[in-house]
Amino acid sequence: MNILIINGPNLNLLGSRETNVYGDKNFETYLKELKIEHTEINFAYFQSNIEGELINCIQQESKKVDGIIINAGGYTHTSVAIGDAIGAVETPCVEVHISNVYARESYRHESRIAHRCVGVMSGFGLDVYRLAANYLVRHA
Amino acid sequence: MNILIINGPNLNLLGSRETNVYGDKNFETYLKELKIEHTEINFAYFQSNIEGELINCIQQESKKVDGIIINAGGYTHTSVAIGDAIGAVETPCVEVHISNVYARESYRHESRIAHRCVGVMSGFGLDVYRLAANYLVRHA
Amino acid sequence: MNILIINGPNLNLLGSRETNVYGDKNFETYLKELKIEHTEINFAYFQSNIEGELINCIQQESKKVDGIIINAGGYTHTSVAIGDAIGAVETPCVEVHISNVYARESYRHESRIAHRCVGVMSGFGLDVYRLAANYLVRHA
Amino acid sequence: MNILIINGPNLNLLGSRETNVYGDKNFETYLKELKIEHTEINFAYFQSNIEGELINCIQQESKKVDGIIINAGGYTHTSVAIGDAIGAVETPCVEVHISNVYARESYRHESRIAHRCVGVMSGFGLDVYRLAANYLVRHA
Amino acid sequence: MNILIINGPNLNLLGSRETNVYGDKNFETYLKELKIEHTEINFAYFQSNIEGELINCIQQESKKVDGIIINAGGYTHTSVAIGDAIGAVETPCVEVHISNVYARESYRHESRIAHRCVGVMSGFGLDVYRLAANYLVRHA
Amino acid sequence: MNILIINGPNLNLLGSRETNVYGDKNFETYLKELKIEHTEINFAYFQSNIEGELINCIQQESKKVDGIIINAGGYTHTSVAIGDAIGAVETPCVEVHISNVYARESYRHESRIAHRCVGVMSGFGLDVYRLAANYLVRHA
Amino acid sequence: MNILIINGPNLNLLGSRETNVYGDKNFETYLKELKIEHTEINFAYFQSNIEGELINCIQQESKKVDGIIINAGGYTHTSVAIGDAIGAVETPCVEVHISNVYARESYRHESRIAHRCVGVMSGFGLDVYRLAANYLVRHA
Amino acid sequence: MNILIINGPNLNLLGSRETNVYGDKNFETYLKELKIEHTEINFAYFQSNIEGELINCIQQESKKVDGIIINAGGYTHTSVAIGDAIGAVETPCVEVHISNVYARESYRHESRIAHRCVGVMSGFGLDVYRLAANYLVRHA
Amino acid sequence: MNILIINGPNLNLLGSRETNVYGDKNFETYLKELKIEHTEINFAYFQSNIEGELINCIQQESKKVDGIIINAGGYTHTSVAIGDAIGAVETPCVEVHISNVYARESYRHESRIAHRCVGVMSGFGLDVYRLAANYLVRHA
Amino acid sequence: MNILIINGPNLNLLGSRETNVYGDKNFETYLKELKIEHTEINFAYFQSNIEGELINCIQQESKKVDGIIINAGGYTHTSVAIGDAIGAVETPCVEVHISNVYARESYRHESRIAHRCVGVMSGFGLDVYRLAANYLVRHA
Amino acid sequence: MNILIINGPNLNLLGSRETNVYGDKNFETYLKELKIEHTEINFAYFQSNIEGELINCIQQESKKVDGIIINAGGYTHTSVAIGDAIGAVETPCVEVHISNVYARESYRHESRIAHRCVGVMSGFGLDVYRLAANYLVRHA
Amino acid sequence: MNILIINGPNLNLLGSRETNVYGDKNFETYLKELKIEHTEINFAYFQSNIEGELINCIQQESKKVDGIIINAGGYTHTSVAIGDAIGAVETPCVEVHISNVYARESYRHESRIAHRCVGVMSGFGLDVYRLAANYLVRHA
Repeated sequence: MNILIINGPNLNLLGSRETNVYGDKNFETYLKELKIEHTEINFAYFQSNIEGELINCIQQESKKVDGIIINAGGYTHTSVAIGDAIGAVETPCVEVHISNVYARESYRHESRIAHRCVGVMSGFGLDVYRLAANYLVRHA
Repeated sequence: MNILIINGPNLNLLGSRETNVYGDKNFETYLKELKIEHTEINFAYFQSNIEGELINCIQQESKKVDGIIINAGGYTHTSVAIGDAIGAVETPCVEVHISNVYARESYRHESRIAHRCVGVMSGFGLDVYRLAANYLVRHA
Repeated sequence: MNILIINGPNLNLLGSRETNVYGDKNFETYLKELKIEHTEINFAYFQSNIEGELINCIQQESKKVDGIIINAGGYTHTSVAIGDAIGAVETPCVEVHISNVYARESYRHESRIAHRCVGVMSGFGLDVYRLAANYLVRHA
Repeated sequence: MNILIINGPNLNLLGSRETNVYGDKNFETYLKELKIEHTEINFAYFQSNIEGELINCIQQESKKVDGIIINAGGYTHTSVAIGDAIGAVETPCVEVHISNVYARESYRHESRIAHRCVGVMSGFGLDVYRLAANYLVRHA
Repeated sequence: MNILIINGPNLNLLGSRETNVYGDKNFETYLKELKIEHTEINFAYFQSNIEGELINCIQQESKKVDGIIINAGGYTHTSVAIGDAIGAVETPCVEVHISNVYARESYRHESRIAHRCVGVMSGFGLDVYRLAANYLVRHA
Repeated sequence: MNILIINGPNLNLLGSRETNVYGDKNFETYLKELKIEHTEINFAYFQSNIEGELINCIQQESKKVDGIIINAGGYTHTSVAIGDAIGAVETPCVEVHISNVYARESYRHESRIAHRCVGVMSGFGLDVYRLAANYLVRHA
Repeated sequence: MNILIINGPNLNLLGSRETNVYGDKNFETYLKELKIEHTEINFAYFQSNIEGELINCIQQESKKVDGIIINAGGYTHTSVAIGDAIGAVETPCVEVHISNVYARESYRHESRIAHRCVGVMSGFGLDVYRLAANYLVRHA
Repeated sequence: MNILIINGPNLNLLGSRETNVYGDKNFETYLKELKIEHTEINFAYFQSNIEGELINCIQQESKKVDGIIINAGGYTHTSVAIGDAIGAVETPCVEVHISNVYARESYRHESRIAHRCVGVMSGFGLDVYRLAANYLVRHA
Repeated sequence: MNILIINGPNLNLLGSRETNVYGDKNFETYLKELKIEHTEINFAYFQSNIEGELINCIQQESKKVDGIIINAGGYTHTSVAIGDAIGAVETPCVEVHISNVYARESYRHESRIAHRCVGVMSGFGLDVYRLAANYLVRHA
Repeated sequence: MNILIINGPNLNLLGSRETNVYGDKNFETYLKELKIEHTEINFAYFQSNIEGELINCIQQESKKVDGIIINAGGYTHTSVAIGDAIGAVETPCVEVHISNVYARESYRHESRIAHRCVGVMSGFGLDVYRLAANYLVRHA
Repeated sequence: MNILIINGPNLNLLGSRETNVYGDKNFETYLKELKIEHTEINFAYFQSNIEGELINCIQQESKKVDGIIINAGGYTHTSVAIGDAIGAVETPCVEVHISNVYARESYRHESRIAHRCVGVMSGFGLDVYRLAANYLVRHA
Repeated sequence: MNILIINGPNLNLLGSRETNVYGDKNFETYLKELKIEHTEINFAYFQSNIEGELINCIQQESKKVDGIIINAGGYTHTSVAIGDAIGAVETPCVEVHISNVYARESYRHESRIAHRCVGVMSGFGLDVYRLAANYLVRHA
């Protein structure tokens, strides 16, 4: 089972950025723990602050994996192009957010990629990645 | 670990209603399977088509359980009162939807209860209840 | 030929409520006259002020009848859940209004159930129920 | 009993235009059947694709008839002027639509003439003309 | 001094239509009086219920006159095309309304032709035509 | 002097729910104090979380009392049907809110029942019920 | 107990202005009666049609009184500056309206000062000033 | 015949302000010419940049004159209070604008006082005052 | 190869109307040149200022040609009825505009017929007709 | 070098009003310090809570100075008339705000005067006046 | 004649992505055919999924070519920055879309770059590139 | 004192791009002059047309400097992600614009990064960078 996690802009700062919202664990540490817990899954990981590189990644890696977990960060709310990329590939994609975006600023309530995904998970802290992987594994 | 599942209007028709959207398994069958898989969880279940009875249930049962999973159906998009009820109790609540509401009519994109919940899971079929329970168990 | 008439909130006050808008005949009297005129139709009748009971009625009675005539009153403009209930059953449903809602306050111009019905009749006084029944009988 | 039926733009194509939406019977055939069924009614009929000719017809013919049935087609959603014409004459007018406009594109949900009519019937196929005539006859 | 008065849809009904709003004098009578009072002006007059004929008139007659007074009736609020016609000719044009449109329904507050005219006069009853002519004469 | 107080959804939790917003006194205690202070008033009290039961109460009890004080809670912002019920009875009705709704979320700023009431009082804590009663007594 | 009543534009015309809406008693007469009824309160009164003078009054008089009752008239709906003035002083302020603004034109439904006040009372005729004073006295 | 002209903010700068829009004649010069031309009218004139002083003037002077011509300048688009003042007095009032506001910025298209006036004249340069006076004289 | 060009309101003024926007060549001259260049195409041409005549033309001529090029002028932005006519016939239709409508007033950005056409070409001057014909020829 | 600083409503309360937002220094103290630091500039200062007096000041003083710094306070967001006054004079004007209005309530994000100014500075505390003066001096 | 074709995000997937919308030919194949057909044109080609690289390309290559054909894909609807880049260079630019965007989701109807281009072509399949080139060649 | 200047898309074209809006000096020349004038400041400079590289720069360089001056160009109005990056770092950031964005197209009036900055300066030409630096130096 191969799963690709794609993190968008500013998620490389997890653990140091607005820790009251996002917590104080960085993503690499979290991912290490996740891999230990789920040795049956082969996780690939990509992070970029550049919208088009996220699109490149979706296009180039989607065929190599059974599922994609994407946290597009701020691009979630503005990027028609990432939504188009997800719609252009056949690999099932789960949109995730660490914080509950519906309890934050109104401009975070709209997602331009959600309708192209299998589903959306918003809130649940870093555990949202494990939950999305759990879904993908069961429905592979 | 006690978890209360609350289903709102028309979810009693699961398995016969718009099966292309919601699948052909009824909720009772699903819940039986879920209990078998997760014997460590004590599931309570309540369904009603009446908005105020959902509020009654939240108020009366919340103290008896460690977490609530709520699929408020059509009331999700219109009920300030259910949102207020969730905000009035301390038990963590997860909003779930069987279908991906963001891939459906635009009036299903807005939730009036999401900002009072821990998080939202939309899509994933009936498996969304298991995923929400999974989260609640881990974070109890 | 079995037809179910469902009246929503405040329609139990017909004949005494805002008689300049709704006329001074109560619904029971009207229904008696209608039955006398149309002995070929077996009319069932349900009224409730409770949104969820209207949903219950749609769910439980729809299979027993050949057509439903629904005047959802104030819930017409706010209830996604009643619209979902109509969409969930196969019995053809006609939405009716005694007054011409398009000649009244703008918030009465939008219906959240119309798109799930066979058609809509608005205006025509109490006679709108007969007209809807007339349609259902001919297209049974 | 004299009733005038006014059909607006593109309704002259009934029977050949988008038959999945409007059916495959042309209006002349339908009207012939309707006249046979309702010999007690004297039907006049006018169709034009020109907005102002519909207004001319309303102005010139309204005094000669006991009721008007108008399907203003695409002008329903844009014509303040036709609405004004209906408001300027005293003959009761019923707005009709063959398809259920509320189940179609959102720009078909607004009518600029409905508030000047006795009532609106939307959906019910070609039978909507008979139902409107039925109302007018009873309330003449 | 040549002035062309153009009246749009339903203004041929002046004197009989909604007399509480528009008064009980028909336009022909009014125009006769106006001509008697202002023998120094040569009035031409055109009325049509057809939007395109109003455009034809503007195009064909504008060069023959020193000014145009236009009451486009219901087309005022919807017709980009009439606004374009006024913008396409060089003759100064005054938009007039018999009733004060700003004290009526909100959809009468917007004019799609006003920005192409020299100015707008709304209200003042039938006298609005004399006032517009008065302006055109002085600024010829 | 008979006054009916109607409390809507979640107001049964007063004293325990979001005490920073609503205070820590429950409504029963408050009502007891109010009755002691105003022995000249005969208070009836009804609370329900069910929208339709609030309507039932308005319909059935309005004739027995000289005035109604209604705090419709979350239904204030969504219920056309409760507004219709108030408009359908003749007993004067005062809309009240414990917190100042205009200083809270924007969705609490709109009331769908206010235009059917004698007036609105928003803010003033639990004392708002006494103030509304004071008004009703003086204007009985 | 010192209470300042501030009346905004056109409230000096009370008793002669639109008496069907505002009644036929002028404010000075009403205030005299109010003082006789409530000798325990020392009422100060200020009226101006000038927005900035209302602000001056709030700034200069607020420290001398225990509470302010403000009816900002037409400025209620447009004045950020008066709202800022209320927010800038510590004296509790009650917004009042003689008529029920929610039953009038939609532009009267929005208040730009309500969120800076303790609460709002709308409707209740001139008695609204007594009710606001009653609240301020009890909570001084 | 007594007519009061009220000019609002920045109209004291006529002749020097944005002369491409408003022309290069100041209002005093214009008024002198107007008085010479219309000796049968007794013109009173008031200008202020202060919104409330315009209201004061309407209230205090309206009974002394047969008609009011008001150019409220920038307050036209924002002042509910001036609209209320016009509605509170019985003297007929004509709203005028020197430039055609509908051919300028969109925020100049809305008037908050027009619905309280007899009518509106927009455009026509300074001559708009003479035209408004002409109307008032004829309809005194 | 038969192609029908349909021009809407005011396009008969090409060459004299707003020449800075539309150029100074009239359409007849242009069409003559186009025919000389493309002798393989049989061009039919229709122009009218009347909305309904454009619809008549679409209905009556569509079967005789292999493609339609339509410049609906001002009706582009307002006519549901023309859009319906295009949708009702099977001949492929290309919407064209001489000027780039997206660089002009915002009300010219919306087309009510574009979604019923094969495609849209906006800008390119009169050459847009040749380009549309070029497309139709290649894809006949 | 002469610079006029104009402060609008409630800015006379600086130092005592909402000190968490605006700081605890009053403007007179600040201005004294500013004059000491910039002896090459001759500062004039005007404050008023009255919108029209701000306009009077702009009109009367603008010719005497080389630049204007205006903090229109709450009128920033509502006053077309102040914007018009700035547009009517030739002296360059800088709009300033002590707090960053874009980080506050959404109704503070719109300025009705900004487009008539040379530029806008928002945020930076009281230092914003010095920065604006700095700009004006360099570009005199 | 030098023409630069710029393709934005996901257009590198042409031929494999949503073939029902975009067809099954990849762009390289198409371009080869186009070059064979139009040997008089020297085509340069650039594709990137990165918004800023599209801007880089416009800036760096525009001076080397006689015209640009840009299909900005999903960035069409969101990118002010690409629109600015087109506006910043002098080379004429044609916006193209393979599918008819006006017949798709509403968020594809708005273009943030169209007003900076010579014109827009939407629909026409891959042939849209040839048509745009055809225009550029003729108007070079 | 270390200050980082970040320029977004198309600002590398300063001096050649739309010189009527932005002037004819390129940024490198300006920066050289600024460094000569302010030798006490150590300026770092970064420009990119790629949104994500602006984010990279903010993340990587913010800790090395005492303040950031950012002109995000067209991304100002669309980029949630850049706003998030500014919010994620602790270095004070000033948003600047060379032209007064409030006097330009309406889509330039909204900034998605302003609320995360210390303040905003819009207008003032290239001098805006010096003014922002001036602020940062004083408040370091």
